[in-house]
Amino acid sequence: MGATAQDTEQQLEQANGIAALLAVIDQAALDGWLAERANQDVAAALDSLDDQATLVLLRRLPLERMPHIFSHLATEHQARLLERLSSEEKAYLVGELSYDDAAALIDELEEPHSEEIIELLEPQDRQVIETLLSYPEDSVGRLMTPEYIALRPGWTVNRALEYVRRHSEEGETINDVFVTDREGHLLGMVGLKHLLLSRPASKIGSLLGDEVVSIDVNAHREDAAHLTRRYDIETLPVVNSEKQLLGVVTVDDVFDMMEEESTEDFHKLGSVAPLPLSLMEASPSLLYRKRVGWLVILILVNIVSGAAIALYETAIETVVALVFFLPLVIASGGNAGAQSATLMVRALATGDVQMKDWLRLWGKEFSVSMALGLTMGASVWWAGNWIGGSGVGNTIALAMLLVVLFGSMLGMIMPFLLARLKIDPATASAPLITSIADVVGILIYFSVALAILGI
Amino acid sequence: MGATAQDTEQQLEQANGIAALLAVIDQAALDGWLAERANQDVAAALDSLDDQATLVLLRRLPLERMPHIFSHLATEHQARLLERLSSEEKAYLVGELSYDDAAALIDELEEPHSEEIIELLEPQDRQVIETLLSYPEDSVGRLMTPEYIALRPGWTVNRALEYVRRHSEEGETINDVFVTDREGHLLGMVGLKHLLLSRPASKIGSLLGDEVVSIDVNAHREDAAHLTRRYDIETLPVVNSEKQLLGVVTVDDVFDMMEEESTEDFHKLGSVAPLPLSLMEASPSLLYRKRVGWLVILILVNIVSGAAIALYETAIETVVALVFFLPLVIASGGNAGAQSATLMVRALATGDVQMKDWLRLWGKEFSVSMALGLTMGASVWWAGNWIGGSGVGNTIALAMLLVVLFGSMLGMIMPFLLARLKIDPATASAPLITSIADVVGILIYFSVALAILGI
Repeated sequence: MGATAQDTEQQLEQANGIAALLAVIDQAALDGWLAERANQDVAAALDSLDDQATLVLLRRLPLERMPHIFSHLATEHQARLLERLSSEEKAYLVGELSYDDAAALIDELEEPHSEEIIELLEPQDRQVIETLLSYPEDSVGRLMTPEYIALRPGWTVNRALEYVRRHSEEGETINDVFVTDREGHLLGMVGLKHLLLSRPASKIGSLLGDEVVSIDVNAHREDAAHLTRRYDIETLPVVNSEKQLLGVVTVDDVFDMMEEESTEDFHKLGSVAPLPLSLMEASPSLLYRKRVGWLVILILVNIVSGAAIALYETAIETVVALVFFLPLVIASGGNAGAQSATLMVRALATGDVQMKDWLRLWGKEFSVSMALGLTMGASVWWAGNWIGGSGVGNTIALAMLLVVLFGSMLGMIMPFLLARLKIDPATASAPLITSIADVVGILIYFSVALAILGI
Repeated sequence: MGATAQDTEQQLEQANGIAALLAVIDQAALDGWLAERANQDVAAALDSLDDQATLVLLRRLPLERMPHIFSHLATEHQARLLERLSSEEKAYLVGELSYDDAAALIDELEEPHSEEIIELLEPQDRQVIETLLSYPEDSVGRLMTPEYIALRPGWTVNRALEYVRRHSEEGETINDVFVTDREGHLLGMVGLKHLLLSRPASKIGSLLGDEVVSIDVNAHREDAAHLTRRYDIETLPVVNSEKQLLGVVTVDDVFDMMEEESTEDFHKLGSVAPLPLSLMEASPSLLYRKRVGWLVILILVNIVSGAAIALYETAIETVVALVFFLPLVIASGGNAGAQSATLMVRALATGDVQMKDWLRLWGKEFSVSMALGLTMGASVWWAGNWIGGSGVGNTIALAMLLVVLFGSMLGMIMPFLLARLKIDPATASAPLITSIADVVGILIYFSVALAILGI
């Protein structure tokens, strides 16, 4: 049976359309495979199939298992599937999702479909989801779920444990439960472990520590990650400006979110627009669309480079050795700039560096890039001297120093400027920095050459 | 008091040496600040001070609080501090760390110091830590902690809860507890919540599900992250080849580790060698050392570019318009290559793409980059035609197509080749791909020019 299940998995991976799927696959083996694998594994296999095939397989599953597998599909895949389901199926599947997942899914849907789903929900679910969707995108409110357990400080441990047992289904997790007053103000957090180890007659209020770390519902969702990591928190309480408890964010959701944010930053740094799907699932045409924009914008920058070189045609004709060192000098500025931009973008994303630190870091970058420029200038001075004489040697050494300085300072400051303009710092991609450094590098190089060589 | 505490924090941030610290800071305010802030906040402030100042402050703390704050310092900072502590202090601090943290710290220390610390440990601690350190670097064994709670399948829920209460200190977490047989083979996992909700007389064995996800102790630590994310696991059991339970990895440790791995990948992609410290803490000389290596290596590649251009001097002199488009054509290959390398490096890191997928992805990349090359070729054809006539237009359009194809395919395949050679795929940094694409781009450009223009 093990071998057959593996065969089935391979056939699923290779089957592109529903016709191929039904023709290729042994139906009994398929049912065996579905029964045997975890929901996440089935969902991963379905994510690589087209929508029609996914629907056939999804409907083949026992009714109670369907929502569990559905909930593990990629959000964009869920959205496409929903458009093909009956109203009954839609209401059932979305109703079974947790509130945060349902809100994320509805957010992904186009206008008429999202309205329809909201209409199909039970009134109380509808209200909760509409509240979640009212928070700004990328805010903690969009990441949290309002499913938590709240105790009162006057209860005994015994009563609290009884309450947790009866309401366990209402919490996304019960490993951490919260303590609030009558108006819902957050007073503290108690671990289930702590409850279990305390004397049954103790008052809940007496178990609370000095302070509980919480986050505002309108804060950026990356701030939730910084708090979670800094304080080793498993369940982060989310409050409004009155410190009333609104929901919780669990570490596994934060982890997922940060992996997605990192992927987005990687792509932006490589000048790829964020992909809504994984690289394996993305179609060639989606990949084309996400890549062509920046490439065409960079064409414009590079045409300026060409124009800059053309300006100095006479210099090139007079001292041919200058062409030899041109790629070296201008690329070095771009490389140093890519380094400092990468360091800065990542440090801003992890919260290691704040906006207020820019001047201090720019100062540090100045000394680092001065040392880098001197090293690199010295290492090319010999080559320039040897090939074109001392004038060319001095030219490329000085140009190298200036170009590396410029590239580094540009790479360091641009992420800050973008963040200041409320643009994602990762937009200061390596190719963009490189291209700008190219243009300026050419101007620096030939200006130095004209001055030193007296052309 | 609040304002004073904030002042103290600012003074701490600005104080560079111990003399400055003691001169500037109001001692009573300092003690107030230490008493009032969480361990993690104090540790973060100490991380920005020099070692001497950190020591003074650390020793000012109540003895029982010292190890908690020490455990939140950056590992490299801990290592430097240990070298200045008395044997007594060393043994106390390291003995209070959890096993995984102690192993990571000892791993960071230089030879004589690490030996000394190991000697100072209690014999049983020493044995556990030596076992952890015997696992390969980057393996799950180095990430796990052997602190978990194991139950027997024949126990009743009541007895199990009693056992958990008595042994709660032995587990890194008790939110998930494990079930093993007499020889320690992993049989399953039970959430504390599940125990709490089950009838007291039920047998533990009857609570277990079909299968429990576990990971081999020698697996790569990133695999632990992939499993944790895929199956929404909070506590991942680690087993040997006999499926005996050796330890656990908790999601917060996985999250921390993945943030560090991502940072390392970001830096490598920007051709910066991994930093052991955060950007704020890193000294200019450390930053210089981590950046100069790749910059100098790239000088060599770019000298080859210069030599390649020099080869085609006659062509440049004959058709001057060629120089105008040179930066454009060659930079486009590098930009497309940086895109595909970035997509691939990240997809390999998240486990979204496996080694076996290379051919399929290369095929997809061929069609994507063909479309990109055609688009870009078409958009520069007009400019070439206008500036240099139809010959130049055709040259730059065809060269653009070929250069973009080459750059993209290089960027996609190089991370795979590196992974195959057991080198981190992120070493295929954007600047490296760009520089290689430059050299080849120059050769392609002028070869096409010679062929079409008949120079």
